[in-house]
Amino acid sequence: MTQPTTSIQKIGVLTSGGDSPGMNSAIRAVVRACAYYNIKCVGIRQGYEGLIHNQMSELGARSVKHIINKGGTFLQTARSEEFRTPEGRQKAFDHFKKNELDALIVIGGDGSFTGANVFHKEFNVPFIGIPGTIDNDIFGTDFTIGYDTALNTCIEAIDKIRDSATSHNRVFFVEVMGRDAGFIALSSGIASGATNILIPEEKDSLEELFESLQKSEQAGKNSSIIVVAEGEELGNVYDLAKATEKRFPEYDVRVTVLGHIQRGGNPTCMDRVLASRLGVAAVEGLLENKTNVMAGSRANKIVYTPIEEAIKKHNEIDKELIKVAKILAI
Amino acid sequence: MTQPTTSIQKIGVLTSGGDSPGMNSAIRAVVRACAYYNIKCVGIRQGYEGLIHNQMSELGARSVKHIINKGGTFLQTARSEEFRTPEGRQKAFDHFKKNELDALIVIGGDGSFTGANVFHKEFNVPFIGIPGTIDNDIFGTDFTIGYDTALNTCIEAIDKIRDSATSHNRVFFVEVMGRDAGFIALSSGIASGATNILIPEEKDSLEELFESLQKSEQAGKNSSIIVVAEGEELGNVYDLAKATEKRFPEYDVRVTVLGHIQRGGNPTCMDRVLASRLGVAAVEGLLENKTNVMAGSRANKIVYTPIEEAIKKHNEIDKELIKVAKILAI
Amino acid sequence: MTQPTTSIQKIGVLTSGGDSPGMNSAIRAVVRACAYYNIKCVGIRQGYEGLIHNQMSELGARSVKHIINKGGTFLQTARSEEFRTPEGRQKAFDHFKKNELDALIVIGGDGSFTGANVFHKEFNVPFIGIPGTIDNDIFGTDFTIGYDTALNTCIEAIDKIRDSATSHNRVFFVEVMGRDAGFIALSSGIASGATNILIPEEKDSLEELFESLQKSEQAGKNSSIIVVAEGEELGNVYDLAKATEKRFPEYDVRVTVLGHIQRGGNPTCMDRVLASRLGVAAVEGLLENKTNVMAGSRANKIVYTPIEEAIKKHNEIDKELIKVAKILAI
Amino acid sequence: MTQPTTSIQKIGVLTSGGDSPGMNSAIRAVVRACAYYNIKCVGIRQGYEGLIHNQMSELGARSVKHIINKGGTFLQTARSEEFRTPEGRQKAFDHFKKNELDALIVIGGDGSFTGANVFHKEFNVPFIGIPGTIDNDIFGTDFTIGYDTALNTCIEAIDKIRDSATSHNRVFFVEVMGRDAGFIALSSGIASGATNILIPEEKDSLEELFESLQKSEQAGKNSSIIVVAEGEELGNVYDLAKATEKRFPEYDVRVTVLGHIQRGGNPTCMDRVLASRLGVAAVEGLLENKTNVMAGSRANKIVYTPIEEAIKKHNEIDKELIKVAKILAI
Repeated sequence: MTQPTTSIQKIGVLTSGGDSPGMNSAIRAVVRACAYYNIKCVGIRQGYEGLIHNQMSELGARSVKHIINKGGTFLQTARSEEFRTPEGRQKAFDHFKKNELDALIVIGGDGSFTGANVFHKEFNVPFIGIPGTIDNDIFGTDFTIGYDTALNTCIEAIDKIRDSATSHNRVFFVEVMGRDAGFIALSSGIASGATNILIPEEKDSLEELFESLQKSEQAGKNSSIIVVAEGEELGNVYDLAKATEKRFPEYDVRVTVLGHIQRGGNPTCMDRVLASRLGVAAVEGLLENKTNVMAGSRANKIVYTPIEEAIKKHNEIDKELIKVAKILAI
Repeated sequence: MTQPTTSIQKIGVLTSGGDSPGMNSAIRAVVRACAYYNIKCVGIRQGYEGLIHNQMSELGARSVKHIINKGGTFLQTARSEEFRTPEGRQKAFDHFKKNELDALIVIGGDGSFTGANVFHKEFNVPFIGIPGTIDNDIFGTDFTIGYDTALNTCIEAIDKIRDSATSHNRVFFVEVMGRDAGFIALSSGIASGATNILIPEEKDSLEELFESLQKSEQAGKNSSIIVVAEGEELGNVYDLAKATEKRFPEYDVRVTVLGHIQRGGNPTCMDRVLASRLGVAAVEGLLENKTNVMAGSRANKIVYTPIEEAIKKHNEIDKELIKVAKILAI
Repeated sequence: MTQPTTSIQKIGVLTSGGDSPGMNSAIRAVVRACAYYNIKCVGIRQGYEGLIHNQMSELGARSVKHIINKGGTFLQTARSEEFRTPEGRQKAFDHFKKNELDALIVIGGDGSFTGANVFHKEFNVPFIGIPGTIDNDIFGTDFTIGYDTALNTCIEAIDKIRDSATSHNRVFFVEVMGRDAGFIALSSGIASGATNILIPEEKDSLEELFESLQKSEQAGKNSSIIVVAEGEELGNVYDLAKATEKRFPEYDVRVTVLGHIQRGGNPTCMDRVLASRLGVAAVEGLLENKTNVMAGSRANKIVYTPIEEAIKKHNEIDKELIKVAKILAI
Repeated sequence: MTQPTTSIQKIGVLTSGGDSPGMNSAIRAVVRACAYYNIKCVGIRQGYEGLIHNQMSELGARSVKHIINKGGTFLQTARSEEFRTPEGRQKAFDHFKKNELDALIVIGGDGSFTGANVFHKEFNVPFIGIPGTIDNDIFGTDFTIGYDTALNTCIEAIDKIRDSATSHNRVFFVEVMGRDAGFIALSSGIASGATNILIPEEKDSLEELFESLQKSEQAGKNSSIIVVAEGEELGNVYDLAKATEKRFPEYDVRVTVLGHIQRGGNPTCMDRVLASRLGVAAVEGLLENKTNVMAGSRANKIVYTPIEEAIKKHNEIDKELIKVAKILAI
């Protein structure tokens, strides 16, 4: 790439929405890429709240040292109610101008992108989004930042639960995160040898589940792990456990909700590399006068997707994975 | 130690009650110590159930290879209702004799020891107990097998939760295991920098908790972790969270129940070494004609405590730790 | 996919060459897919050695339980000198026939595939390869099984080294594996915030390295991590450290060779899922009468690459990653 | 404890010598205990160097937030040559007075304590030492801060090596740290199921080692891990590996030097709790006018040992552990 020519001299970066592991790596990459291209970089605290309330400060290359491997986001994140109002966005724009910012980089999920899109339309603020969420539910990238770490947190937890399950001949219902999407459940379920994986994208029925548990028993399995996406429509883990206990009173049924451990932790190598790449790509994109797009990675190549496409479209659950899950649970 | 002289030629080993990390290391040590002293060793499956239903098989030194680092118990464990009946124990004794066993080694907690004690009184079966439980609630040993691993599982989980808590300015209630005892909560709470630690051994009040949260806020803390023992009498984490939300509607309060991940996982070095030492000590104790005792470690020395003392007495919560927790939460 | 029709009734599976995390997950997937499609599956021990010396046994669906998360390969692996001789391969074929095998699945790297290719040509034995190596140096797949785990092992180790480096103002040379390829070094270097990454694919010079170290110092870095691929042509870590000490006597220079820890460990989620997918794909490929190909994953889709192409061609180092590494080391 | 009365109003804290995990936890405890007792606390950078060169700043309770779980030492550490000279110590004392410090807390090993002792004698500076080293070679405490973490780093690494060793029928020599002491080698060797453990405290011979390897082979072991302390007098791992290869040309012998990964990493629960306790105890000790002592923990109780005793005496290797190692390697 040749040195880009552009009018952009100062970029603001913020993290918004739910936090995810690798956000710090992405901020670091944005800051360092700005330094590399001789652009000023300003860190905005607590997402759009920091823009509204003018909480921001310049970040030099050294200010982001030793954070590539830290979970969470040192800029903090928030869901800003005020930014949903025209008044809030006006205040945000006032501070955007006052601080002489030329563009924004927004690290977050579709809610955060929606906000940026509105802000862009109202005030013509150039911005690029970076997909940072554990849920992997953003179109325009094969993986979101934090997804791989969350998957590994899940399987390490389920490995531990399995130790206990097999020591006791137990049936475990394990709820994993993912909002309306089953990506985390499907991949972590396959990777942890779950006998069943319940995700919102598939029609599940209690009878199928019960049949499968019986089949497992007949096949000689002495314990079962059922991984359930939080968005599963058949019921939550507690309801499913109760129904199972009622149907099979002889089973020793337990429930674990993995919860917020899935949002934290040191990012994996894949998440750090992805975050590093997308952070650089976002800065370079702005310098090439791209705007209102999301920087993503598809088939290991950087792609920029129009933000409205990223918000509206959805990655589909991979049918191959559903087949693999079924085969391996035999 | 000189080669012991004894009439014991064949020892049965079982794991009973809740599983804990390091049980496999303890079984391995029992099996290898038997091999070392030219004693036969028989593995009994699923605790007392395996004795009642004659599920056991001889274990040679090689049969326990590569298990020192595996969580759970490959002999499986169970809580046997049948063993609580005289008929059950009679069946157990019949199989004990039929398999020409001379003594038992019981790895478990106080419930398991109580069963062994009754069995001993009725049938004069020599046995030694090994404390295997994550709860650390057994008298006669400074640490139980699995406790250190559970502590590390807790703090790794809470470290992850902290990433998310500090990214969002949140108050987190985290429930850890420990039955009626606060050992896990107290140590993991100190180690994870909890602002409050609620344990059954201490009288806690909602007002103190609220005051402390307010003080934390005034001291400039932007997030709080409150570690709660499952046996806490003030209420469970959900109740406490609700009360806190009611009192401080502006707080973003969340709950995580760590659950069964605390029972599994590869044992830590300390648990593997402790389990190895106690497994050897149990075999040596039987060969020295000790019986109806528990092998434990106090001040890094092996001690044998009469089983009734181990059951009835309780380790006290260390007042120094409570003080340290309070000082560090400033 | 419709139920495939084929003459294949019995498949042998082996792991060959260097071991890598996820090989067990791949074996499990092969065994379970065979069970699912009503095909017999035979596990061959120690790679081609087991074929030559007739060490194999049938594997049912339950025989591979609880191994998806275990490092190494329970079938063991070996580099067979005998299989490189016509006599050795004749013996191997004799046992192949004697055991009524119809096809082979070979999990390993290019050396193992070369052997299979010769065997195929001599005896017309149908086979499919699965890329199992930490080095990621196999054409026809974006990732090899074990690569992601090795990367994470590397960055966790380098994170620890960084703790010490920053506490002491030190320059660390860290050697990572990868044979002739720099994939592990490049990705783990980016992910661990290395100031320099030396890989065989790039021309490096001592002067550039020294300049870069000086620039780092001037930029205010108080410690540096230099990640070096084992195949780096400029010299090994010890030579590089010596040259650096000579040039900058005031530096506190240290060396760590990560070594064999990179080959072991519980596979990551990505490696487990990849191994699961490729194991199923290999069985399905054979049932669809594919042979002499490698099952791989490109852009998250299963692809079958002619084995000779997989052996001869090479994945290229991603120029984008080299650029990202350079930018972030500013 | 009643609120202590003392003339001490301002305490300086530093970390010195080799870094160890948990040093940050100890600094945090010192800082917070000072805040709790209304004493000022000053952090001195890079050990005695910071005293000599006046690099120090006041630390409030919030300044040490979120470091309890971070490896290394944020104050940095160093081995100061200048502090070994009277001139250096004079400069140090000048800055000690200029900054109105009343006492020092020195976190480090015996070299650091020796320096503090000389400083105390020359200038009558009150100080308390806290044992921070992975080597566990300090008298007056059952465990040093960092030892437990280093042990767990070792066994996690050796677990990974074992995956590879058992997949290949290999003999692995693994060098662990510990300077002249075998504590790390002995405990990590037992915990990782080593067939042999070579430590400086025991007379070892090549012939015994070879006999043992042969015995292992005859006993049916298909791989061996030999853990070697870095201070082992029989030779370093490379020499031992060469001698073994010469004696048993048929063995596949490998070497891994774990190296500096042992000094880093997030501290374990035990190290965090120990560091927290000793940090508080050091502050309280000074407030009670104790000086020239080390705060340690024996049998889980805080004890203060005269610093000269801590330096001169040595913890002995536990004979019970040596016996256990031998029995379990059968």
